[in-house]
Amino acid sequence: MAEFDITEHPHRRYNALTGEWLLVSPHRSKRPWQGQQETTEAEQRPAYDPTCYLCPGNTRAGGAVNPPYTGTFVFDNDFAALTADAPVGSVNVGGLLRAEAESGVGRVICFSPRHDLTLPEMDVAAIRGVVDVWVEQFQELGSRPNINYVQIFENKGQVMGCSNPHPHGQIWAQRTVPGEPAKETVQQAAYFQEHGRSLLTDYLALELKEQQRVVLENAHWVALVPYWAVWPFETLVLPRRHVTDITQLSGEEKDAFASILQQLTIRYDNLFQISFPYSAGLHQRPTDGQEHPEWHLHMHFYPPLLRSATVRKFMVGYEMLGDPQRDITPEAAAQRLRELPGVHYKQAAT
Amino acid sequence: MAEFDITEHPHRRYNALTGEWLLVSPHRSKRPWQGQQETTEAEQRPAYDPTCYLCPGNTRAGGAVNPPYTGTFVFDNDFAALTADAPVGSVNVGGLLRAEAESGVGRVICFSPRHDLTLPEMDVAAIRGVVDVWVEQFQELGSRPNINYVQIFENKGQVMGCSNPHPHGQIWAQRTVPGEPAKETVQQAAYFQEHGRSLLTDYLALELKEQQRVVLENAHWVALVPYWAVWPFETLVLPRRHVTDITQLSGEEKDAFASILQQLTIRYDNLFQISFPYSAGLHQRPTDGQEHPEWHLHMHFYPPLLRSATVRKFMVGYEMLGDPQRDITPEAAAQRLRELPGVHYKQAAT
Ligand SMILES: O=P(O)(O)O[C@H]1O[C@H](CO)[C@@H](O)[C@H](O)[C@H]1O
Ligand SMILES: O=P(O)(O)O[C@H]1O[C@H](CO)[C@@H](O)[C@H](O)[C@H]1O
Repeated sequence: MAEFDITEHPHRRYNALTGEWLLVSPHRSKRPWQGQQETTEAEQRPAYDPTCYLCPGNTRAGGAVNPPYTGTFVFDNDFAALTADAPVGSVNVGGLLRAEAESGVGRVICFSPRHDLTLPEMDVAAIRGVVDVWVEQFQELGSRPNINYVQIFENKGQVMGCSNPHPHGQIWAQRTVPGEPAKETVQQAAYFQEHGRSLLTDYLALELKEQQRVVLENAHWVALVPYWAVWPFETLVLPRRHVTDITQLSGEEKDAFASILQQLTIRYDNLFQISFPYSAGLHQRPTDGQEHPEWHLHMHFYPPLLRSATVRKFMVGYEMLGDPQRDITPEAAAQRLRELPGVHYKQAAT
Repeated sequence: MAEFDITEHPHRRYNALTGEWLLVSPHRSKRPWQGQQETTEAEQRPAYDPTCYLCPGNTRAGGAVNPPYTGTFVFDNDFAALTADAPVGSVNVGGLLRAEAESGVGRVICFSPRHDLTLPEMDVAAIRGVVDVWVEQFQELGSRPNINYVQIFENKGQVMGCSNPHPHGQIWAQRTVPGEPAKETVQQAAYFQEHGRSLLTDYLALELKEQQRVVLENAHWVALVPYWAVWPFETLVLPRRHVTDITQLSGEEKDAFASILQQLTIRYDNLFQISFPYSAGLHQRPTDGQEHPEWHLHMHFYPPLLRSATVRKFMVGYEMLGDPQRDITPEAAAQRLRELPGVHYKQAAT
């Protein structure tokens, strides 16, 4: 019998950050695809769209008027999933029907006044402006007594449920720590307790040694396809220095963050030569008043595409009922991303 | 301040089966939708399609020829994610890079020779034939020493990653118990230990008393929108009697199962008058040689659509990074499903 080889044979991998497993079936990437094709979006958008709710000076769905902003612009989501003044209460019938009122804040962050840009097409200084807004927002919302977690994220592309192509992200900040960061807290705390170093410090050192899954590096940050990546081209963006949240970054580290975000999203766009869809977001320490020395700031990118601009990975039957499953290995995905040019295909063409 | 009302105010609900929480934002169903529209599939298909890999007598992608089957037909998946003869081995670098070889079997179950049917358009006797295949397969695969979990499921519709409309489901059976049934094992075992009854026996009794989320009932089965439903029209199909797997059902219970499956999927199709997409699957005891008296057989239906035939719920940014989130309440979803006619819209029209 052949020797076990993770680049060829079916196996499960452990997600050290969450404690969960996934199934990897490298041989399966060869199967034919006759299923759904995604539609690709119009590549040319105007710099200003009079019908866009997010462009400067326009009136939003809720009736408010956007200021003539020139950099970033933050406002309370007109249709927020969370509200600050929600009534308090709970339900518990036999431990089986359990509910708890939840309160919080939903905000929208416009990354740029330009309707036709996205992060990979913005310059590093402009992306640094977005990073600065994340810092301010985390600081402001995280210091409220009834906000114990601040989730900053972006849904990019229609296939990721984004209903407006104007470059923007969101913040959902709330009383309770949601499930994903809660799992990461448990795993990171156990590791920190045992080793006295953050889990991601040691993980990063292993990745830098192996160099199998690293996509990009700069003086302060590394972007890699994690060993336990679920989505075909999933990446994890890590600061080399162990900080628990984004407010602790130095000016130089924030510039370097903006730079690696630009470089990574350029590679994503270059992969299939389209505006590459993803959901991405920061994971940082809960803002529950505790110190959380175990927490190591990071950013996840979850892109759905698998084979081309129009064929995505479906997380469906087996994945919903069993475990997440992937076809190409993280190592193969990292290699493909690594080999892509660092100049955006639209710029290379002009 | 208003009194807390789960039909109106944002809250979290607890999933008693998995131990996880979700966010419910009832007020949010009013937001406008300018995002992606799903394409609906052709309603008219031929009873036999010469290009279909699954029709009787046709040649499959792998070269094998399907027999001229007249009921159900089971074969080994030509592109299985799991293989029986996979090399054994594992990786463990500092507890952070961990992998384990996985082996198993992937099978395809054709539900009918008719290319143009789906479960809701099949008669109860034909669906009973599908139930019988599930029983046989669970028995056969589950008795193998190296198969400790048998996942039976169906992906229906292109939006659920199904690449062939011929009515069919799948089985992925493997050495390890996947994450979802593993979580359900923990929760059910804790409940059984404490109460001496299965968690779902007591849960079902509460639901039958409240009648808020029940969609359908017959002598042996109940279909309901669970208190903790994540997908807009998610349902849970439960036997009234506590059995740990499908092989323990009586003939009458199997007939009643076929009947409630037909009735439920007819309501689904009638909701938006289309062939309603979903992923669905059975959860039953692990086949690891232990008795698992805590396990209570059930079937999950996870349909993606939210507002219409073309607007789905996206589980993206916040959901991937935080917690699952839903807009309409489970109670409102159950009411809509309950009020739909029990005759399939295609039949009602003729
Ligand atoms: O096996 P199929 O039908 O080719 O593939 C479909 O179901 C599988 C199991 O849920 C998923 O892993 C695939 O992403 C999906 O496209
Ligand atoms: O808030 P939006 O952009 O309208 O909505 C989008 O992101 C939300 C947060 O991930 C999701 O709950 C929605 O399903 C998605 O369409």
